[in-house]
Amino acid sequence: MKIAVLGTGMVGRALAGRLSGLGHDVTIGTRDPLATLARSEPDGMGNPPYSTWAKAHPEVALAPFRDAAVGAELVVNATNGSGAMPALEMAGADRFTGTVILDISNPLDFSQGFPPTLFIKDTDSLGEQIQRAFPRARVVKTLNTLNADLMVDPASLGAESSVFVSGDDAAAKTTVTALLESFGHTDVIDLGDISTARGTEMLLPVWLRLMGALGTAAFNFKIVR
Amino acid sequence: MKIAVLGTGMVGRALAGRLSGLGHDVTIGTRDPLATLARSEPDGMGNPPYSTWAKAHPEVALAPFRDAAVGAELVVNATNGSGAMPALEMAGADRFTGTVILDISNPLDFSQGFPPTLFIKDTDSLGEQIQRAFPRARVVKTLNTLNADLMVDPASLGAESSVFVSGDDAAAKTTVTALLESFGHTDVIDLGDISTARGTEMLLPVWLRLMGALGTAAFNFKIVR
Repeated sequence: MKIAVLGTGMVGRALAGRLSGLGHDVTIGTRDPLATLARSEPDGMGNPPYSTWAKAHPEVALAPFRDAAVGAELVVNATNGSGAMPALEMAGADRFTGTVILDISNPLDFSQGFPPTLFIKDTDSLGEQIQRAFPRARVVKTLNTLNADLMVDPASLGAESSVFVSGDDAAAKTTVTALLESFGHTDVIDLGDISTARGTEMLLPVWLRLMGALGTAAFNFKIVR
Repeated sequence: MKIAVLGTGMVGRALAGRLSGLGHDVTIGTRDPLATLARSEPDGMGNPPYSTWAKAHPEVALAPFRDAAVGAELVVNATNGSGAMPALEMAGADRFTGTVILDISNPLDFSQGFPPTLFIKDTDSLGEQIQRAFPRARVVKTLNTLNADLMVDPASLGAESSVFVSGDDAAAKTTVTALLESFGHTDVIDLGDISTARGTEMLLPVWLRLMGALGTAAFNFKIVR
């Protein structure tokens, strides 16, 4: 499948590397590829610069958002929450007719420090805002409730855990669920329409506190039933 | 232990029955015991009237909030969210010096129908509001993330699942954790101070959607790590 991954952070890299490894034709979209490649220092979280990652993944192209999205059947929104709408606009709303948008972003607001609050919540969600802004796209919210490494390799936890899909289009959810299963997810729960993304985005506060309490991001929710 | 359970709904009954069965001295508090006992019809959820439950649990006393709380070492807040503060006020704020308040309530707002929204969230929580309103009490938020039957009998799920405790007082959390373990909980996660209740109260939206998607309330979160 031809796939554009929007975002060059750890989530974008994890998704792009895994999808490429599974044989998909992957281009990462960024605002300014030259600027992205020019960075030579680790980011604020200590992650290596993009160029280091790119050298290890020569099969993954890097392009401006708009070029990355040309002809993509699936667009992965791996931006941070506040960057989601600008990135999708730059990728080209006019091109999203029928396109599946796999939306991982969370509406985290770090402006008051840690822990962040949510800049959308409870009566709306970022997933819904994206669907409303791009009505011809088919948005599926998923993977926003776990760490980047576990998104693409859940088996590394050593026990089954769960991921969720929210979206209005059944066929798009089927496409995304198949991708998730190709990553190793064995418990994909369809919560319902895109408004159910409110619930998964509101998982972030407890996720962040769990990370603090457990001293690791290597955990995930399993729905035991 | 002498325990007051505030609330005569399914959560209050589940906690009172289980605690009594474990040998604790339990009184259920309600606004007007005669009115509570006079109801003879199932409630809006199809649950039997309190009097039916009371006949099967003669060892559990029923008293006005204030009388129920006299001398209680532990007060269980099993009211619905909007009823929490009035019930605790009636139970007698002046009596809560050192008292452990095990707070199960969630700030659910059903005024706009289903699914409910939260009337407190993200930058505050009902748990924190209760702690601020009763500063001499020791509030521990817990059990607000699962169904009443599972609160008191988690082993019935057939696989281990998790519960959370949030609170400012370490000794109070130890007391509550011991009670949870006596119910059969084997994975009690201490999230930290009472502000971490924001995270567990914000789990309710996804819990409600999961109930819809799974067609049952007999599920719980397990933190796989």
